[in-house]
Amino acid sequence: MVTATKGTATRRATRADVAQLAQVSTAVVSYVFNNGPRNVAPDTAERVRDAARKLGYRPNSMARALRTGSSRTIGIIVPDLSNPFFSDVYDALETSAARNGYSTMFMASHQDPDKEMDRVSKLIARNVDAILIASAQPTSALAGVPRKDCPFVFMDQTQAVPGAKCVSTDFRAAVQLAVHHLIGHGRRRIAMLSGKADEGLADKRIQGWYQAFSDSAMPVGAIEQAHYTRQGGYEATMALLDRDDPPDAIFADSDLEAIGALRALHERGVRIPEDIAVVSFDGTVDSGYTWPSLTVVQQNAQAIADCVLQAALHPDDTPDLQLLDTRLIPRESCGCVE
Amino acid sequence: MVTATKGTATRRATRADVAQLAQVSTAVVSYVFNNGPRNVAPDTAERVRDAARKLGYRPNSMARALRTGSSRTIGIIVPDLSNPFFSDVYDALETSAARNGYSTMFMASHQDPDKEMDRVSKLIARNVDAILIASAQPTSALAGVPRKDCPFVFMDQTQAVPGAKCVSTDFRAAVQLAVHHLIGHGRRRIAMLSGKADEGLADKRIQGWYQAFSDSAMPVGAIEQAHYTRQGGYEATMALLDRDDPPDAIFADSDLEAIGALRALHERGVRIPEDIAVVSFDGTVDSGYTWPSLTVVQQNAQAIADCVLQAALHPDDTPDLQLLDTRLIPRESCGCVE
Repeated sequence: MVTATKGTATRRATRADVAQLAQVSTAVVSYVFNNGPRNVAPDTAERVRDAARKLGYRPNSMARALRTGSSRTIGIIVPDLSNPFFSDVYDALETSAARNGYSTMFMASHQDPDKEMDRVSKLIARNVDAILIASAQPTSALAGVPRKDCPFVFMDQTQAVPGAKCVSTDFRAAVQLAVHHLIGHGRRRIAMLSGKADEGLADKRIQGWYQAFSDSAMPVGAIEQAHYTRQGGYEATMALLDRDDPPDAIFADSDLEAIGALRALHERGVRIPEDIAVVSFDGTVDSGYTWPSLTVVQQNAQAIADCVLQAALHPDDTPDLQLLDTRLIPRESCGCVE
Repeated sequence: MVTATKGTATRRATRADVAQLAQVSTAVVSYVFNNGPRNVAPDTAERVRDAARKLGYRPNSMARALRTGSSRTIGIIVPDLSNPFFSDVYDALETSAARNGYSTMFMASHQDPDKEMDRVSKLIARNVDAILIASAQPTSALAGVPRKDCPFVFMDQTQAVPGAKCVSTDFRAAVQLAVHHLIGHGRRRIAMLSGKADEGLADKRIQGWYQAFSDSAMPVGAIEQAHYTRQGGYEATMALLDRDDPPDAIFADSDLEAIGALRALHERGVRIPEDIAVVSFDGTVDSGYTWPSLTVVQQNAQAIADCVLQAALHPDDTPDLQLLDTRLIPRESCGCVE
């Protein structure tokens, strides 16, 4: 690396140094490193980048952010960073954001409304260009947050939020798909492991559950609380097996719960799918490697990431609410594949 | 939220407004929102935060960063966001950083050295306070990056890197622990699924593998490349089963590989642990819910996060290289638990 020197003292290379070496104006140097607002001919841009490399010039993006009002950063608030389905979405978001010239700042709320508000304030103070949020709380609690300066995109709200964009899987349709598949396999005592059983019909997944049985003129199957965790799925399945009328099929509304359910069924010597068929929801990579492999209704992590980012960067061209489709992948746990 | 108003125009609340309402100096307001440099009595701090809430005051952290030279942001570069072991570390890092008043900016390198260098440049341009990196490349490639302004902490380098801090699990000792455990179970044809088999003895895990057999005066067991993925573990296990001398035990150097291995063994009707015992490395939550549950040598994600953050924030008080211990958790797959 060549360092810009004056006499014996070393100083940091400036935009003017780069402009001089590349024989362009300082404005052109800015256009190259800001990706705009004017286009620069590829040859010229290459010359500028070459000069910057030689001089070790590093544009200071914080100073630039204060000047332009954009930090080219997307803030992302998530319940935690270790849920495998969300991890797939985060990875896709980071990749797509980088491709668009944006960096991503991830923060975790740990399902705590106070922490969530704290993270929102921090991101706003950092002048992020948008906040993407998988909310731990009813969106009304975030209504007081000023959104004019900073677009909000909710990543798993299935109902429109005034002044914000919402992108979500169509949970209601997804659950119906799963239940109809199990009914198609001749199952009549289907139970659900639900992450949010305590919310009852306020949860779209549970709405889909009721709707599916209503469509099929069947009594609604039992619901057990499973907290979206492996341990929750394990305990809920044990509780189902201890009932007087154990189920002949289980639908788990997350892969984590389904993995806990499989463990419980194996421990009790229950044959899958002969005694109890299982269908899961999420379709993470995990689900293809369990024993038996899980039939899943799969969410499209890449599509979610693309839609969320589009809503954040181009809100005027995006509908306020987008519900994304799922697809059923038949594998061993329902009996489709031997 | 009360908004600071003058006449009919609304303006953003300033530090002076907060100081006036809380009846403190503007310096005290700064101390509260910067977590220092001076301590503020809890009662006073509460009064300041209360005033800030009432006025809707938001400290502008970018302006503050330019003034203080600190962005109170830790940049974190990782191969990807979806590996479950790393996710546990990220989650712990985010939590600990937030507790210390720092935000985390995660970027993914996707194991691509060019992308990694690009992410390093981006983070430096953002004046991050430190860069934590799980590197995809030999550290020498990052030697040209100026570190004086920005401490580097490598998150999985097991050898000292000049001018940087390194924190890692002691992979060499961890693999020895696993092999000795399997030998203790009477296994004599132990094979390894290795994420980096292609690196041979350059990889600390493989060094530990050779050492363990040498210590036990036994011929070194077979090694199969498994790429740290479920599919890699699956295919490598199938290759082992197709050998003329199939193993009686498998050590997988990641939980993902072990999950793929279990799937392959079930498909071939191999009994675990009777025919083939399995020990895995990582000890993510997953490993407790497989069938059978995996005996693991467990890395301590929280300890890694704590040491990495300590090295980033207090480099002068931290050794250049820290190797962390692991522990063996006996479960079903080795035969310790029925």
